[in-house]
Amino acid sequence: MSDLHNIDPELLQKLVYDALIWSSLHGLVVGDKNVQRSGTVPAVGMVHAPFALLPVSFPESHWRQACELAPIFNELVDRVSLDGKFLQDSLSRTKKVDAFTSRLLDIHSKMLEINKKEEIRFASQELNQSILVNILDWILERFLETLAVSQFAEALAKAWTEYNNPRAVAMVVVQPEEHNMYDQHWICSVLKEKHDVTTVRKTLAEIDAQGELLSDGTLLVGGQEVAVVYFRAGYTPIDYPSESEWRARLLMEQSIAIKCPSISYHLAGTKKIQQELAKPNVLERFLENKDDIAKVRKCFAGLWSPDDSNIIKDAIDRPELYVMKPQREGGGNNIYGDDVRKTLMRLQREGTDEDAAYILMQRIFPTVSPSFFMRYGICYKDFGISELGMYGAYLRNKDKVIMNDHCGFGQSIFGLTTLHDLITCYLEWAVDKEHVFIITEQLLISQ
Amino acid sequence: MSDLHNIDPELLQKLVYDALIWSSLHGLVVGDKNVQRSGTVPAVGMVHAPFALLPVSFPESHWRQACELAPIFNELVDRVSLDGKFLQDSLSRTKKVDAFTSRLLDIHSKMLEINKKEEIRFASQELNQSILVNILDWILERFLETLAVSQFAEALAKAWTEYNNPRAVAMVVVQPEEHNMYDQHWICSVLKEKHDVTTVRKTLAEIDAQGELLSDGTLLVGGQEVAVVYFRAGYTPIDYPSESEWRARLLMEQSIAIKCPSISYHLAGTKKIQQELAKPNVLERFLENKDDIAKVRKCFAGLWSPDDSNIIKDAIDRPELYVMKPQREGGGNNIYGDDVRKTLMRLQREGTDEDAAYILMQRIFPTVSPSFFMRYGICYKDFGISELGMYGAYLRNKDKVIMNDHCGFGQSIFGLTTLHDLITCYLEWAVDKEHVFIITEQLLISQ
Repeated sequence: MSDLHNIDPELLQKLVYDALIWSSLHGLVVGDKNVQRSGTVPAVGMVHAPFALLPVSFPESHWRQACELAPIFNELVDRVSLDGKFLQDSLSRTKKVDAFTSRLLDIHSKMLEINKKEEIRFASQELNQSILVNILDWILERFLETLAVSQFAEALAKAWTEYNNPRAVAMVVVQPEEHNMYDQHWICSVLKEKHDVTTVRKTLAEIDAQGELLSDGTLLVGGQEVAVVYFRAGYTPIDYPSESEWRARLLMEQSIAIKCPSISYHLAGTKKIQQELAKPNVLERFLENKDDIAKVRKCFAGLWSPDDSNIIKDAIDRPELYVMKPQREGGGNNIYGDDVRKTLMRLQREGTDEDAAYILMQRIFPTVSPSFFMRYGICYKDFGISELGMYGAYLRNKDKVIMNDHCGFGQSIFGLTTLHDLITCYLEWAVDKEHVFIITEQLLISQ
Repeated sequence: MSDLHNIDPELLQKLVYDALIWSSLHGLVVGDKNVQRSGTVPAVGMVHAPFALLPVSFPESHWRQACELAPIFNELVDRVSLDGKFLQDSLSRTKKVDAFTSRLLDIHSKMLEINKKEEIRFASQELNQSILVNILDWILERFLETLAVSQFAEALAKAWTEYNNPRAVAMVVVQPEEHNMYDQHWICSVLKEKHDVTTVRKTLAEIDAQGELLSDGTLLVGGQEVAVVYFRAGYTPIDYPSESEWRARLLMEQSIAIKCPSISYHLAGTKKIQQELAKPNVLERFLENKDDIAKVRKCFAGLWSPDDSNIIKDAIDRPELYVMKPQREGGGNNIYGDDVRKTLMRLQREGTDEDAAYILMQRIFPTVSPSFFMRYGICYKDFGISELGMYGAYLRNKDKVIMNDHCGFGQSIFGLTTLHDLITCYLEWAVDKEHVFIITEQLLISQ
């Protein structure tokens, strides 16, 4: 594996060809951004999803550790999301500098005011492109058909069953233009074929236009009762170009439909909350079992607010050990290297609240391996990092925990020079030579 | 069905969407000719295969008739192909005016000279796009996965088994650029997964460059022994741009590999031979059973050589009842209406041998129904004709007939204004209100 330049060129060509054929015959496709309408009309302008041709070995112990942590972490996030005061207090400074988080907090406040109960709570990591895009075709098949898609669909179907109205639908909240629509369609297809659950796809604007809230909290969209709302849009400010989208988000939140995620889960997943959880004695507020606490703490990467003067000093001295991330979700705007030093010094100089818009993280240096990457039918060699994505699912109806497990995993291999094209994960585990880390986005660490 | 303008627009939109999703997830795709590399690199520039959205009802009696005829016709073609003199004599005039048929006849002559025996003979209608491109998604699924592809793959696998060398491969002869590659890949994929038969894809030029004939007749291509040759190219003169391609065709013919089709089968499928078979007392040379003869004759459309003065006179008087077709395969150059009259009069005037390049056929007027057609993600209404494609398979090892059956069928619906885009079938059954016809290409009859 490490000697990729010794691979037989003919064998490589055959692997490339077979993998491309497999992708095209089994719907491992995305919309090609170069083709008009490919983000709106299905089956037009398709190209294989980018993928790594070969797997990278991964220590079994790390995989076990991730499996063990998944239910503990699910429980933790559920409890954090129930603590409205903790969420509001922890995010109070962020609220001032981040208009997006501020709007989410407003909706959250309204729910606290009306004492909105979420009797059925459903959380799941976002199924993401990374789970679909790697490894030899037979592994791809296993992933796609056996693990990720079908297990996630099963989790959604269980949530739908708890809602207990066979005529209600599952609604996928989508972006108006979505080149990555096909893995969404896979989930909907499995939901229908295996679980007889009908799905509808709606943009936030459509939900605003067609949505209706009955007095008992029932959510109707286009006249159809919605049991489960699965957000594949709504995580970044650009998904809310007008008040219409915010009205839709509020409408859904007020309803009794099961949200994946609800606003409190969404807030519990922010980096700022992770940072709070990393502080001494905070995990203890939410978990009782000492072993569990130790396990979770062991895998936290260092996370600090850029108002801790000791850390700031160290980060200015040794910026290569840190990464600065914008508080708001979306990824791709991380600050590395000498820019960390410059940004911190500027923030110190200006002395405004802007520092609250960032968090400072320990920089993780995962193992880098040479890999073959496929994009637009072309195979090229690049250094890549391997990442284990563990997809947890948690479903609780009042006091009854119906599901708390990992629901499939994906090993993702990212090319260092093409990272910007890949989608941000919601929650993943990263691994370096020694440790498993919980991270809220993909670790985009280049050498 | 006949009242398509009364269809609920919302239902229609949903059908369109679902059908597009199904196509994209299940590999019902073709290369988009507007996208560079889409005919050479798999998984790049894909778009759904064009299809008709709704089925058209089809009389069960016609379907039964076609099923009944398939094995008789298989037998007939096999016997005709064995009669080298009949093939050479029937095509002697064609040879003078059609360079392509002439080259095929040359190869055929060489095989007669060396008294080449084809101990294992395999014939099958070409699986063609039309079988993949119609009807509601659940029917599509049944067609694609249950009937056409898997049954055709099974027939190929049986031929491969008769060859009796587990290390030999099946070779698909392909065009250098092929936008319709994915249904070929489906067959190869099923061959591998269900029957553990490895396939290779080679162009005629590659076969010339990499092919080798051992003294025992074994065909090696790129060092691999070939058990079965499946031609998806080689049916038109443009597939033979140089002597290299003809050398490849001869090499394969000389080998003991099972050809689908062999040169004699290829010649037996020409329109001229069909025309000969339609003459009085010719069927009787090849079939014994009177019932079988009557059944086959009943479904022959009128077929004449344009040297029969009575027919020429009638066709000049009533050209709307005839269609003139070039003798050579490939389709698309048929002559209709007043052009039939003009062409016949010109041929009479000139008095050359050029008339041998054409055959004259009774024009068939199939039932025309309004249909919805999908192309590039767009649904449009057009009148269409429905056609039943019956895919026969015949396999014989010396005197033992191993397979003689229809191996799946497809109901194809062609939009009258877009026919030129569809691929020519090798052999099909056409149906008008009263009859089933055997035809050698799609009946492209517009009102």
